[in-house]
Amino acid sequence: VLVDSVDGALQLIAAARVERVVVPVVVELDVDGYRCGIDPSDPDFLRLCRLLSDSEATEFRGLMSYAGASYRCSSTSDMADLAERHRLAMVCARAVLSAVGIEGTIFSFGSTPATYFASSLEGFTEARCGIYMFQDLYQAGIGACEIDDIALSVLTTVIGTQPALNRFTIDAGALALSKDRSTQGTDFDAGFGLICDSENGSPIDDLYVSATSQELGLVTSRSQNRIDFRAIFLGRRLRVLPNHADMTAAAHDSYHVVNAKGRIVDRWGRVNGWEL
Amino acid sequence: VLVDSVDGALQLIAAARVERVVVPVVVELDVDGYRCGIDPSDPDFLRLCRLLSDSEATEFRGLMSYAGASYRCSSTSDMADLAERHRLAMVCARAVLSAVGIEGTIFSFGSTPATYFASSLEGFTEARCGIYMFQDLYQAGIGACEIDDIALSVLTTVIGTQPALNRFTIDAGALALSKDRSTQGTDFDAGFGLICDSENGSPIDDLYVSATSQELGLVTSRSQNRIDFRAIFLGRRLRVLPNHADMTAAAHDSYHVVNAKGRIVDRWGRVNGWEL
Repeated sequence: VLVDSVDGALQLIAAARVERVVVPVVVELDVDGYRCGIDPSDPDFLRLCRLLSDSEATEFRGLMSYAGASYRCSSTSDMADLAERHRLAMVCARAVLSAVGIEGTIFSFGSTPATYFASSLEGFTEARCGIYMFQDLYQAGIGACEIDDIALSVLTTVIGTQPALNRFTIDAGALALSKDRSTQGTDFDAGFGLICDSENGSPIDDLYVSATSQELGLVTSRSQNRIDFRAIFLGRRLRVLPNHADMTAAAHDSYHVVNAKGRIVDRWGRVNGWEL
Repeated sequence: VLVDSVDGALQLIAAARVERVVVPVVVELDVDGYRCGIDPSDPDFLRLCRLLSDSEATEFRGLMSYAGASYRCSSTSDMADLAERHRLAMVCARAVLSAVGIEGTIFSFGSTPATYFASSLEGFTEARCGIYMFQDLYQAGIGACEIDDIALSVLTTVIGTQPALNRFTIDAGALALSKDRSTQGTDFDAGFGLICDSENGSPIDDLYVSATSQELGLVTSRSQNRIDFRAIFLGRRLRVLPNHADMTAAAHDSYHVVNAKGRIVDRWGRVNGWEL
């Protein structure tokens, strides 16, 4: 359970008593005003942690923060500064709790860019950085990786060519790629994904998925260069690199793991949804 | 199989011969330049249909069109006109084929708004209108339904309140709602979804999901009115109406069917993904 207010803590304790259970709790710190959490300099912060630590219905486990504001930073040094601000807030909050005898075991930090650019993670016990393992076009755009580092793509097939309109159609649309448009409005706008060769994984010219229907993607040249339709033919396999790896992966049941030669060597299941 | 060019037909026939199978084929008409298909007034149209009809490797089944341009219409009468244009194109194409002895059984038409506003569907054998069964905020916005007609919502719980920022957090984020932003840029922009009462399904003031993280939604008042935090408390159940029912439904394994009293009376499975 994630708790970020005294009210929330009181409600949680009351509910846990009714159910006669002991609930382990992590308190979220709000360091950059990005989404939720409690400001550790707020007097309620200590009150909240004391409540959770003293109650027999809850077990105080630690603190977490999420540097979501890293997605709004304009430079990598701003991201490093933000990560350091989160780290100092965590170290201070830990010290305050320690001084009154409240100890925890989880001191967790989040966001892929902030983890990548942090100059130190001293004081944290874990980094929650989901995209980090695959990377994606947004991360490449903000400098957290190279395009060649992106380890996840959607395999697709050319199912229609329209040379007169200088575009073609693939059988991967919004359901396969997601409607994530996190690169929109940036100078690395990738539409709904970049088109790559299916064998070597390299981008083909500046082809990108400029529009999606549910099951179809429409591919055009970002600079409106003439597409080479000798190379783009019906049935050709291509790969689409994702804007946001997490959203794209969530549209699929499993990963097909390929080796350097492009051969499938394993299949990894995914946990999707929320039901047991 | 969907075919929209002579090249495509020749490739398909060659592939079917190699595999020694007979492939049933529907030819897509391009009536409004929205995504794919062949213009039925193009001389290749008849050539293509003859090829498919004459070959022992393919079986000509009929024609289809998709009035995707209805999503760009600014009035319901424009949608009706577009539907009629598709209908006339289909009737003419059928007549041309009939005149040379090519008959089919499938004459299919698509898009929810065009189906809804068509003055006649004479000449079609089916309407492909996926959203039609549930409707959504986009369809309500363009006048294809009322908000009260929307039959699909995501059940969610208030997990954090931030009265000082006049906002609160729910446990439905981008993975539960989808990142579809089809209402963006319209005067009925609904963010990532409208907030409703969980019992009677009515919208609560003008609350909407203005931002999403993967597992969290941030709710604010569209007009920035003061939110009534006596009514919005931790643990309260709410419903979120979707921008685009198809994308939201695809994020879930099944539907919980509720009766007029809000009791779950059935559970309907969904077919997601592409693998057998």
